[in-house]
Amino acid sequence: MTLRRTVTVLGSTGSVGVSTLDLLEQAVAHGSAEVEIVALVAGRNVEKLAEQALQWRPKLVVIQDESLLDELRARLDGSGVRAAAGPEAVLEAAGMGAEWVMSAIVGAAGLAPTLAAARTGAIIALANKESLICAGPALLETARRAGGVVIPVDSEHSAIFQVLQPDCLERVARLILTASGGPFRSWTREAMGRATREQALAHPNWNMGAKISIDSATMMNKGLEMIEAAYLFSTPADRIDVLIHPQSVIHSLVEYQDGSTLAQLGPPDMRTPIACAYAWPDRLAWPAPGLDLGAVGSLTFEPPDPERFPSIALARSALTAGGMAPAAMNAANEAAVAAFLDRRIGFLDIVAVVAETLQRMDAVGELDTGANADGALEIAMTTDGSARRVAAEVLAGLTH
Amino acid sequence: MTLRRTVTVLGSTGSVGVSTLDLLEQAVAHGSAEVEIVALVAGRNVEKLAEQALQWRPKLVVIQDESLLDELRARLDGSGVRAAAGPEAVLEAAGMGAEWVMSAIVGAAGLAPTLAAARTGAIIALANKESLICAGPALLETARRAGGVVIPVDSEHSAIFQVLQPDCLERVARLILTASGGPFRSWTREAMGRATREQALAHPNWNMGAKISIDSATMMNKGLEMIEAAYLFSTPADRIDVLIHPQSVIHSLVEYQDGSTLAQLGPPDMRTPIACAYAWPDRLAWPAPGLDLGAVGSLTFEPPDPERFPSIALARSALTAGGMAPAAMNAANEAAVAAFLDRRIGFLDIVAVVAETLQRMDAVGELDTGANADGALEIAMTTDGSARRVAAEVLAGLTH
Repeated sequence: MTLRRTVTVLGSTGSVGVSTLDLLEQAVAHGSAEVEIVALVAGRNVEKLAEQALQWRPKLVVIQDESLLDELRARLDGSGVRAAAGPEAVLEAAGMGAEWVMSAIVGAAGLAPTLAAARTGAIIALANKESLICAGPALLETARRAGGVVIPVDSEHSAIFQVLQPDCLERVARLILTASGGPFRSWTREAMGRATREQALAHPNWNMGAKISIDSATMMNKGLEMIEAAYLFSTPADRIDVLIHPQSVIHSLVEYQDGSTLAQLGPPDMRTPIACAYAWPDRLAWPAPGLDLGAVGSLTFEPPDPERFPSIALARSALTAGGMAPAAMNAANEAAVAAFLDRRIGFLDIVAVVAETLQRMDAVGELDTGANADGALEIAMTTDGSARRVAAEVLAGLTH
Repeated sequence: MTLRRTVTVLGSTGSVGVSTLDLLEQAVAHGSAEVEIVALVAGRNVEKLAEQALQWRPKLVVIQDESLLDELRARLDGSGVRAAAGPEAVLEAAGMGAEWVMSAIVGAAGLAPTLAAARTGAIIALANKESLICAGPALLETARRAGGVVIPVDSEHSAIFQVLQPDCLERVARLILTASGGPFRSWTREAMGRATREQALAHPNWNMGAKISIDSATMMNKGLEMIEAAYLFSTPADRIDVLIHPQSVIHSLVEYQDGSTLAQLGPPDMRTPIACAYAWPDRLAWPAPGLDLGAVGSLTFEPPDPERFPSIALARSALTAGGMAPAAMNAANEAAVAAFLDRRIGFLDIVAVVAETLQRMDAVGELDTGANADGALEIAMTTDGSARRVAAEVLAGLTH
């Protein structure tokens, strides 16, 4: 059987976008998928985008950075592929009606195009975290109203998605997100207080971007993932746990009230969750690397230490508070991580700054607004801006 | 929501039967199940059976051993519960039309009542292994024709059942049965050749019956489970693997062609797979013991050594040969294990006797018969008898 879909990739030249197109190429060659690319969108990598466009021949290619449009057009000269640039063109590409849209633009810039794609009723393969954290309920409601669906692509939420039985959501005892534990998993709190930028960036398993590496070191990445999980799977904060699992082979688990725990495992390859999002509820055959547990040998687990990793409890309380607290937490964390990377604050200050920012915003009622589907984008942007201003005040107090 | 079912338990006083009634009692007390017991069947434990009958008030209780009927009647005097005995009464109980039938009679005696229950279109919660190994295709076809279904209850097959997506059976790369590895997991082949009855009975994790303990030591239990899995999940022998996992926390896994592996985990409690079989596709809430992976700490895995555990390859070839080879393998194994327990043969002789028995039967065409749904019971019994006779000849050759 061949799975035929029209496809748009938002963020096609980033790591998830490249993995998506690689997977689709392999699945097409394998005979298990037929793919027609409707639109490709990239930020600044015009060379890669043009190469992808010449291979896949989409109806539209968009480069976010308008200064690169001429170069894109030159590279596509004679191909007949239409090229455009700028935020309006990104939204046009997102809303062109592809059956399956990979949302893989990084950061807050991904929010508007993801909502635009959701309005078309497409299957949204969601890699952009901000869409969920800043406007999760609104995004999911938008997709539902339009007859679409959101399928997560990051490994933890894809794992839960794969083993969560939709018929018995009420029978879930716990969602359990696994975490590598980052570079400071076995450090003392004192040592973490003295940790340098370089030490925090040295992730044991992955070579990632600086922001994500620091989030892994503070475990704020898991805090953010708890929020995503709560929205995606309509699960309250007190039923979402984090478990340290340094080998990152079990990507996450669901424990049911009958005592059964289901898990998804796999080698660290983004193409598997992407394949899952493409084909669900079917599976996409491609020459996938398999998991050889006999060769892996051993999987270990430990509970996270709340003293050394306060980010998890902070995220849980932001989630329980609801409203715009998760969006504010995300923005404050970005500001605090940037300050740490600039060597303006210590490692343990990162989460402390986020906590203080949330407290100050809460004290003046700035987190109370709920976002409905229509106003979600504006409210999220307003909250984001406020949180960055308050975080800057907190940081100024610390560093002066 | 309350799951209401009429229930019959075949083998109610054995370990699985007792766990079943305990689970149902707890689920009823929890408010998640409403249970009406139609019939209870036991072999010889008249005291326990009467106690269960007085608690649950079924329409019929049956003791297999006819000599115990008077005692059963005396114990039920005045209760109004009808008591009966003997094989015909067992079949009557199995066929009384309960919506859910636990098939937990041990050994070949479970085959006929399981088929009788399947003919009623009941949900069969299957703990009796012989029904599958000796007449798997016929049993499943009988259930399907009657509009019923067979749900496995042993931990490995329940695990696979829970993570096997019915819509994409063709996308399964491998079913992976986990195995504790038994008491000889790290022994040399030479040491295994000298292993005594006592050493073979000393299972590291479980206190089980002698036959099952020896099957665990030879890993023939996994060979038999491979056959069950092949029938239950319509999967060819070359897509079923065995993985040694001494902690027995991951009960089994399914690897898909997209690179994703799904697994079921849990504490060693039969009530969880029983609850799963009761409620599927829903889940039954009861005060289940949960799995605390942080406390477990470590899970290990290793491939089974084909030199020391030839039973797995033997089972795979019996499965590939098809016809009555699996039933013959099962009977020959029972005979060989009995001879080892009688100290008539060495430990490594067990699988050798089974292999030689299958070869001799194959050479004279005794394994070629396929069993259709109607003649399954007779053919299985004939094959069983032949295999025991041939195995006795092989054993005589070894021990004289």
